[in-house]
Formats: sequence, C-alpha cells, structure tokens
Amino acid sequence: MKIEVWWIGKTTAKAFLPIVADYEKRLGRFHSITIREFPSAKDKNPNQQKIKEGNQLLKHIDKSDHIVLLDERGSMHSSQEFANYINKKAISISHKLIFIVGGPYGFSQKLYTRANELHALSLMTFTHEMVRLFFLEQLYRAFTIIHHHPYHNS
Amino acid sequence: MKIEVWWIGKTTAKAFLPIVADYEKRLGRFHSITIREFPSAKDKNPNQQKIKEGNQLLKHIDKSDHIVLLDERGSMHSSQEFANYINKKAISISHKLIFIVGGPYGFSQKLYTRANELHALSLMTFTHEMVRLFFLEQLYRAFTIIHHHPYHNS
Repeated sequence: MKIEVWWIGKTTAKAFLPIVADYEKRLGRFHSITIREFPSAKDKNPNQQKIKEGNQLLKHIDKSDHIVLLDERGSMHSSQEFANYINKKAISISHKLIFIVGGPYGFSQKLYTRANELHALSLMTFTHEMVRLFFLEQLYRAFTIIHHHPYHNS
Repeated sequence: MKIEVWWIGKTTAKAFLPIVADYEKRLGRFHSITIREFPSAKDKNPNQQKIKEGNQLLKHIDKSDHIVLLDERGSMHSSQEFANYINKKAISISHKLIFIVGGPYGFSQKLYTRANELHALSLMTFTHEMVRLFFLEQLYRAFTIIHHHPYHNS
C-alpha cells in the first residue's frame, strides 16, 4: 500500500514548515509517504475556486485509488482505532490510499461523490494548515502504535 | 470573567513557540488571557510525577475558580458550540475560568475530583504541546465567532 497525503496551496504560515517537515521525515522511517501539494485555484468566487480545485485533484485520481477526505462531517476515531484502520488497509489495499486535506473553502461536490470515506480529526474547525500538521502527527502516531514504538505512550 | 490557560512544563519543541505566541497576542485583542506555565515535577515514577504536578496546581486554585480540564474523556464541541460556551460563561462566571492542559502523564485523581468540567478537543491523542496550540487556536476562534470577525469563515 502506498500512502499519499494531498493538500491544496502552499503552507503560508511559515512557522508550520519545520514541524510539518519533521513529521514527514519521521514518517519516512516507518512507511513511504508522498505529500503532494497542489496549487490553489485562486478565484474571486469561493464556490468556483472549490470546483476548480476539486477538478484539478480528480485528474490525478485513479479508479483504483482509495480516497479519504479529512472533513469535519466524517467519522471520528481514537488514535488506536486509526492505527488499526491503517494496519487493516495495509493488507486489503493494493493501490494507493490517498488522504486529502481541503482548501480554505472545503471540497467540491464531485470530490465528495468520488471519495470512498470521510474522516474527521475533531468536531472543531481548525485552519487547513493546522489540519495538515495534526493529520501528519496522527499518521506518524499510528505507525508508532503499529510498530510498538514508545512515542504514543510517552 | 478572567480566562487563564495553565500547562505544565516548558514548550520544548521550539518550533511551536512562535505559533503559540502569535495566538496569545491575537487573543489579547479580544480578551485578557493569562497563560501560566508551571514547572514539571520530574519524578522517575510517572504516577508520582502526576500527583506532584496536580498538587502544585491545586495550591493555585481558588474555591471560586471554574476549572476545565482538557481531557480526551471530556465532552466534545464544535467551534460554534465552544464559542457559545465561552459567551455564556462570560455572563455567568464572576471569577476565573481556568483551562488546564495535562502534562505527559495526564491529570492526578485529585485534580479530576476538583475539576468542574472536562472538555475534549478530539478523540485522538496529540502531544501535550500540540494540545496547547490547538486549544489557543480554538479559544481565539471562539472570540472571532462571538465578535463576528471573519477568521472563522475564511
């Protein structure tokens, strides 16, 4: 199973960059993870921007990819449950497992329709840049749980 | 109502410091917030450390203080619900509203007994330094919602 994490737009809050880079590096020790940053569509109309960004992502999605949108309306899991999820998917998925963090206006309807699952990190709304950081930390935590690395219990 | 946010131990992940400082500054524009950092107790026995740290905090808690522990077992709220909560408390509480972020080993039993409420940011476990950042961002977001500032919807 190949895991990819996709997001739209550069991380403009520069203070987040070293923390995101650190988790990306740590994750690499457990599993090959590809982070893909797609350019923001920039449209005065938020809805149009959302649609354009969604279409851009859809071009890169293959039929066999398993798509998980990180969305407040999604199902919630504890870190242990999320680790079990990753472990199970590692066995059952032969293609890509792609987690997508929405842009500032969220996901287009077409992307919701294509998605296989919706996962929520919290009921609370965070900046989309924070979601990137939180999610990478959870993915790293999941691998430390799977590999009995002491990170999760320290 | 005076709002305080308490945590134990210095922020050792230096990359977090400017982000935490930024939210502290932004919060100050809406409401006077005091962040209190208590020294870590450092004991080889995690349970003893938890007890010592709890006792240290309890010394600084007044009878009239309203204590909220940020704990995974707590109730969960959307950002809008949390804003409503802060707004309501601002009217009903004449003393301090104190939010406490646990140390690496969590809260002592005495602190659980003294607490008025438990709030959870997520079902997931994050590092206690991330929780500081998440919570300050949510507190800031709550004030932007209360004051109809565009932050929450941008």
